[in-house]
Amino acid sequence: MRKLLISFLTFFAPCALSAQVQTLTSPDGDLELKFGIAEGGVPQYELSYKSTEVIRPSRLGLVLRGEGAKPEFGSDVSATSDAAQRVGSLCGGFEIADTAVSSFDQTWQPVWGEEANIRNHYNELAVTLRQPHSGRQMVLRFRLFDDGLGFRYEFPRQPGLVYFVIADECTEFAMTGDHTAWWIPGDYDTQEYDYTRSRLSQIRRYMDGSITGNLSQTSFSPTGVQTSLQLKTDDGIYLNLHEAALVNYPAMHLDLDDSRMVFTSHLTPDPNGDKAYMQTPCTTPWRTVIVSDDARDILASRLTLNLNEPCKIEDTSWIKPCKYVGVWWEMITGKSSWSYTDDLQSVHLDTDDLSQVRPNGRHGATTDNVKRYIDFAAEHGFDAVLVEGWNIGWEDWFGNMKDYVFDFVTPYPDFDVEEIRRYAASKGVKMIMHHETSGSVRNYERHLDAAYRFMNEHDYDAVKSGYVGNIIPKGNNHYNQWMVNHYQYAVEKAAEHRIMVNAHEAVRPTGLCRTWPNLIGNESARGTEYQAFGGSKPSHVSVLPFTRLIGGPMDYTPGIFEQEISKINPGNHSHANCTIANQLGIYVVMSSPLQMAADLPETYERFSDAFQFIKDVALDWSESRYLEAEPGEYITVARKSKDSGQWFVGNVTGERSHLSQIVFDFLDPGKTYIATIYADAPDADYRTNPQAYTVRRVLVTSKSRLRQPAVAGGGYAVSLREVTDKAQMRGLKRL
Amino acid sequence: MRKLLISFLTFFAPCALSAQVQTLTSPDGDLELKFGIAEGGVPQYELSYKSTEVIRPSRLGLVLRGEGAKPEFGSDVSATSDAAQRVGSLCGGFEIADTAVSSFDQTWQPVWGEEANIRNHYNELAVTLRQPHSGRQMVLRFRLFDDGLGFRYEFPRQPGLVYFVIADECTEFAMTGDHTAWWIPGDYDTQEYDYTRSRLSQIRRYMDGSITGNLSQTSFSPTGVQTSLQLKTDDGIYLNLHEAALVNYPAMHLDLDDSRMVFTSHLTPDPNGDKAYMQTPCTTPWRTVIVSDDARDILASRLTLNLNEPCKIEDTSWIKPCKYVGVWWEMITGKSSWSYTDDLQSVHLDTDDLSQVRPNGRHGATTDNVKRYIDFAAEHGFDAVLVEGWNIGWEDWFGNMKDYVFDFVTPYPDFDVEEIRRYAASKGVKMIMHHETSGSVRNYERHLDAAYRFMNEHDYDAVKSGYVGNIIPKGNNHYNQWMVNHYQYAVEKAAEHRIMVNAHEAVRPTGLCRTWPNLIGNESARGTEYQAFGGSKPSHVSVLPFTRLIGGPMDYTPGIFEQEISKINPGNHSHANCTIANQLGIYVVMSSPLQMAADLPETYERFSDAFQFIKDVALDWSESRYLEAEPGEYITVARKSKDSGQWFVGNVTGERSHLSQIVFDFLDPGKTYIATIYADAPDADYRTNPQAYTVRRVLVTSKSRLRQPAVAGGGYAVSLREVTDKAQMRGLKRL
Repeated sequence: MRKLLISFLTFFAPCALSAQVQTLTSPDGDLELKFGIAEGGVPQYELSYKSTEVIRPSRLGLVLRGEGAKPEFGSDVSATSDAAQRVGSLCGGFEIADTAVSSFDQTWQPVWGEEANIRNHYNELAVTLRQPHSGRQMVLRFRLFDDGLGFRYEFPRQPGLVYFVIADECTEFAMTGDHTAWWIPGDYDTQEYDYTRSRLSQIRRYMDGSITGNLSQTSFSPTGVQTSLQLKTDDGIYLNLHEAALVNYPAMHLDLDDSRMVFTSHLTPDPNGDKAYMQTPCTTPWRTVIVSDDARDILASRLTLNLNEPCKIEDTSWIKPCKYVGVWWEMITGKSSWSYTDDLQSVHLDTDDLSQVRPNGRHGATTDNVKRYIDFAAEHGFDAVLVEGWNIGWEDWFGNMKDYVFDFVTPYPDFDVEEIRRYAASKGVKMIMHHETSGSVRNYERHLDAAYRFMNEHDYDAVKSGYVGNIIPKGNNHYNQWMVNHYQYAVEKAAEHRIMVNAHEAVRPTGLCRTWPNLIGNESARGTEYQAFGGSKPSHVSVLPFTRLIGGPMDYTPGIFEQEISKINPGNHSHANCTIANQLGIYVVMSSPLQMAADLPETYERFSDAFQFIKDVALDWSESRYLEAEPGEYITVARKSKDSGQWFVGNVTGERSHLSQIVFDFLDPGKTYIATIYADAPDADYRTNPQAYTVRRVLVTSKSRLRQPAVAGGGYAVSLREVTDKAQMRGLKRL
Repeated sequence: MRKLLISFLTFFAPCALSAQVQTLTSPDGDLELKFGIAEGGVPQYELSYKSTEVIRPSRLGLVLRGEGAKPEFGSDVSATSDAAQRVGSLCGGFEIADTAVSSFDQTWQPVWGEEANIRNHYNELAVTLRQPHSGRQMVLRFRLFDDGLGFRYEFPRQPGLVYFVIADECTEFAMTGDHTAWWIPGDYDTQEYDYTRSRLSQIRRYMDGSITGNLSQTSFSPTGVQTSLQLKTDDGIYLNLHEAALVNYPAMHLDLDDSRMVFTSHLTPDPNGDKAYMQTPCTTPWRTVIVSDDARDILASRLTLNLNEPCKIEDTSWIKPCKYVGVWWEMITGKSSWSYTDDLQSVHLDTDDLSQVRPNGRHGATTDNVKRYIDFAAEHGFDAVLVEGWNIGWEDWFGNMKDYVFDFVTPYPDFDVEEIRRYAASKGVKMIMHHETSGSVRNYERHLDAAYRFMNEHDYDAVKSGYVGNIIPKGNNHYNQWMVNHYQYAVEKAAEHRIMVNAHEAVRPTGLCRTWPNLIGNESARGTEYQAFGGSKPSHVSVLPFTRLIGGPMDYTPGIFEQEISKINPGNHSHANCTIANQLGIYVVMSSPLQMAADLPETYERFSDAFQFIKDVALDWSESRYLEAEPGEYITVARKSKDSGQWFVGNVTGERSHLSQIVFDFLDPGKTYIATIYADAPDADYRTNPQAYTVRRVLVTSKSRLRQPAVAGGGYAVSLREVTDKAQMRGLKRL
């Protein structure tokens, strides 16, 4: 309490506006927001959780182009007034014109997701600020949920503010100490980094080593990190910083002043260095702080979805979760190729005749090979088959800033679109389209209508899109306002065509799948492909749910059963840092309406007992229970299928081995279930013995307890099936 | 001859490669090109005309990104070797691997233009250059016509050069003296400048004063000028520097080293500062030098068209010259407005309901007003009516970098597309579509297909497009490679829809209308609109045919009969610096398949005798004779209608009054014609008495001579009709 008092003094004491301090509490009373105007008319907020300060007094504001520079780092709050008066802009000189407090409590149903019903329950404070010297108004809207805070800037229609350019957003998140963070380097072009766990004070030291190579990357600061950022205080409070509803605005990064432990928003710039072009009435995305002293609450939070607009698609009947296999891992590992020929050093799509060149004999997307995957999908109950490398252009598809790189409608000579459509339909399997843009976004938009029409005509109802490499038009980065608008355009256009989108290398999600549930997946993080490019940290998948997944599901493409990539392609010596049981656990832990079984069909044939879990696991859930969680260490989740009512449990384990102790109290009391437990064998090791697993079947009830060890980089998965006939129990022991 | 010898010594003497000097002469022998490799392996050329040097030894080459800097200005030719070896790249280190000489003589027929038959006659030298140290090859292809030189860089398919980035093109045009030039400031975004006539050495002095305001402009050098650049030596030789076939490459400007009088190519950069992204096999556009000691030959040159590819549109029957009026001048003068309402400070196209706002009562594009123009067009035999301001979005259409500024398909509530279509069709009049992009090019491309389909559905077969303001995506300029590709895309897409394009504020034309004759017009210069924005120089239209029109026709929109703009809009005190007779002369002098009568219908009613010439004049020609010409002073042209065989003569006069003395020897011998001569009255003055003109009818034969004065900013026009019945001659005197 002493600490809180001090901060108050620092915060409000120097100014004469203390009467204007606004206080807002969360519905359960655990979170308290204070908002006020500090000296110089600078808006400030702070946040406490269970009477402990979690966000110290932090300034809010925006610098408009032509109205001064961003306030300098290093100026403390008490020195704000001068700076704010000097910069003018929308950083200071404000007074409170109006405040409005309200409450909201509504339950809504997502088209797909972790729960059938989501409660959107918050108390709201809307503060209308006015600058007497400019007459301009700005609204700060705070929504305080039981699990965190969302706030945004709103710019009402007004004569003095019609069009404006945001040169900098100066939203601060002042930390209360040198917290532990799970972070990836701030970057305008990629999120495909392994997470580093460190103290905030150590970010600077570890930054260089954390910036691993990527085909397109632009870092901006030695202390810049990306959101969603997971933090943990020494008091055991978990904080998660991110944003919600990123529409028509650049993606936000966080730049740390590590002398004061203050994060400031850092927006992705356009080629001119400007951040956002705005037209009133308009708003920024929501800035979010999820807070709890229980890490499981971070995973259970629906704050990000709740801060997005309701669904804008009227008829959503065509949006369906999808489990799929694909002609993909064989190219990722280097066993086969996306390209059709090795004879062309470069391709001119408008003049080259691909039917006249010599095939390289390693092309993955041949009609015969695709049929093999269709057969496999049909046999094992998969919904769909993805095929990459089906369309002309892959001979020189990246690294050349090539404008007309793909046309998205012309197959290679050995890929018979119509025959594949017919064959897949006859087997009850859908085909998934692939649109790699190579970052050539104008070219994609020019072809988008035709490409989507091609999909409609050939019965593809989902597309995996990709944005590998630097963006064309040049000077743009993957996460600036212009590109954010592009991703949104592609999703909305797809909805017109009743097409589901799974965009890779696009900006990380911010809950927009509530509004546009045809956005069924994103990559936007380091995916499984890196297991074939040198490997990812074994803790990676026990961090992702705390970071990348806060904004929406990931097409992580799990299911790697053969960790020695050289067994697929002798020339590739990468090792996948995971056990088979870990891979199974992912299907439950990393909920997604789109789940791939990424490995080769022939690999799955070798491990048919483990593969059974992938075949069984559901994609869409009516309930989710977060049983255990610690970032980078372990996550255990139980989920109930929306379709069948069947429960599944998954665990992923990170840097160190973990012993789970879970209770099946989520099961219906009085019923008995057969639990099939897929687990690391005692001698399993993600480096040396990753394929050692056990499958056992036991009987459980809602009172059963499971003690289940998992090795580092390991995990386990459980499927639970209600006993409907006593004969099913024969030979099975109770847990 | 002494001069030539000296230059040879300077050029070739210092190097040991003189055996490799290649000489090429024009078919008529007047032009001689010498090409050789100077010390350091630097390609060089020079050009002489009738044994007089017109281009001194000039280096050729390109700097590739990552391969050194552009050679510094100020280094003379003999110092080249070090620089070239230092920079490497494609600037030096070459040897000649092969040379090929050939001739070409073919006559082709343009779809429309100044002549029915165009002779394409040249001698060609193709030099294959090789860099021993890199193994790379580059071809320099020279085509020498009787009227000038074209040359370009070609990059064959080769292992060592697949994709490359041009950081700078270092093509030199070394002048032989301090010539007189008619120039506008080099600029990445606009050509809408008045021409300055000065010595080369004076460009620097006059630059600042020549850069007048524009909504988008980016100058780059105190001695940077645009092409086509018209020059005149003190010996009376006219030189014209430009380019032909600008496709997939940035527009070229010229930067003058005024200590040595050497122009070097300056390409419009992309947002990263790069110039061009190339993929072999590929070429640059042609660099052109038109040469003559008779200014009329510059106007008569077809070199630019001849260096373009033949027509790529198979069926051109739908491409038709067009004379039109439009709901336009009334907005340009400020009498009426493009916008529908004054109530919105900004428009959100996706949410605002324009049917709910209050009309401002000054909207030009109302159904009733359009019908008035349709009636006028039908009555006076015009083909079409252009209407600007018909579609929603004009309330805040420029200056805001607004992305979604227009949708190109939604009319204002008072513009009834279907009724107008019906009414125009009933009167035999076509409607011309208007697509103002406001520079928001992504938005235009997103809507382009739908916008063209809308045109097809509503019977519009031509579109005036516009690119006012800065380009979105930001960081791009109007003339860089990315934008050049856009303009080309819009034209080719239009051809698919059988739509003719008249693009304003687009890159200046380079003869592409030969290949894509649906590109029936461009603005790309200071057009008539500036007469309502403060006025243009009275000499402007006697410079344009030597500069802007070298690349293709201009939609100059002449026909201003009311020079006091305040008589149209009392608040606008601009004065059009031209006489009525000057305006009539333009229709013949500035040949275009698209000609507007730009003034208001009610103005034309007041001058119906003069208006008769606009009604009569043809748009498409079988023959053109350039009777008199001097840049900025006077141009007199006679042309024969391709349709009717009727001859027309036009004159524009520039800075000073002019007395034409022309002979009608182009007429059929033995025939008598009635000449209707529209001329400045003796007391006409473009400032104080611009509406003073005379119309007289006389009889002429092929032996008649006309002495016709024109005042400064004046001119005259003559229509010639063959006497088919002696009764027609009654009361008419012989000239």
